Amino acid sequence: MKALPLSKVYQLIEPGPVVLLTTAQRGHVNVMTMSWHMMVDFEPPLIACVVSNADYSFNALRATKECVLAIPGIELAATVVKIGNCSGRDVAKFDRFALTPIPAKRVAAPLIAECFANLECKVVNTRLVGTHNLFVLKVLKAWIDPAKRNSKTIHHQGFGRFVVDGKSITLQSRMR
Amino acid sequence: MKALPLSKVYQLIEPGPVVLLTTAQRGHVNVMTMSWHMMVDFEPPLIACVVSNADYSFNALRATKECVLAIPGIELAATVVKIGNCSGRDVAKFDRFALTPIPAKRVAAPLIAECFANLECKVVNTRLVGTHNLFVLKVLKAWIDPAKRNSKTIHHQGFGRFVVDGKSITLQSRMR
Repeated sequence: MKALPLSKVYQLIEPGPVVLLTTAQRGHVNVMTMSWHMMVDFEPPLIACVVSNADYSFNALRATKECVLAIPGIELAATVVKIGNCSGRDVAKFDRFALTPIPAKRVAAPLIAECFANLECKVVNTRLVGTHNLFVLKVLKAWIDPAKRNSKTIHHQGFGRFVVDGKSITLQSRMR
Repeated sequence: MKALPLSKVYQLIEPGPVVLLTTAQRGHVNVMTMSWHMMVDFEPPLIACVVSNADYSFNALRATKECVLAIPGIELAATVVKIGNCSGRDVAKFDRFALTPIPAKRVAAPLIAECFANLECKVVNTRLVGTHNLFVLKVLKAWIDPAKRNSKTIHHQGFGRFVVDGKSITLQSRMR
């Protein structure tokens, strides 16, 4: 994993890929699948996400105020779904799904070696957690695997159906 | 346009497509390009979005508390970028870009006939507008064009580069 400039983080999140969210609480590491997230600011990169209070990760995220967002490529699609199909209450998911945790620099939650990008985050706003389970995260450190830089991501359309990145097009734009 | 059940709205937004946001204030109709949005709840469908206070649409959205999110297919990509490259301060964008407004049922902002889906929304939470320009919208009514139902959408990766929907895959999932 190589450091990625924070100014480029939005280019990974803005297209809307499925991500994995890792937490660590009292030595207990967990990971969940998440599709409800968006960019909130460019730099420092702020990301909003919704983590249901029915999810095991909710309490860990709220208590530790830290997480990692790891972005999986298409080759991890089957694993992504298996992670979403079970709960950290019952399953040690890193073991069960043969994920390799890498220690992060700024947070206790681990990076995932198999993912092509990893974002170390801390929670900076919880005002909408009570009403909407909505957290605002600040990205402290970002990593990219240069060998997998052009990974195709997956986007969830509901009930296990995903659309995979197809071709890219570039148009003359003044938008950042 | 045919009514789409509100329970299916998340399947359109969760994959992270670029959308168009329309507003109407004192008879002045406008449209902007937006990629910073996410689902917040299934039903009634809640969607969070970030509209910069530098955007002309910000004041209209904040004042009228209404908008339409219109989802364009790939065939509108060039128009989507042109809409993003100029401001409603200077340009009557529906006219300039030959977009066809259709009256909505529940809000003053118009649907866009050329888009394959349209969501009539009202603002239900503004607590993070002051700090993060983050609005929470509730979808009141949803529409889909049956003839364009399987449109390929576009996802912005920054600076006018878009990834287009590729193939779909379906995996055995307990996730909604």
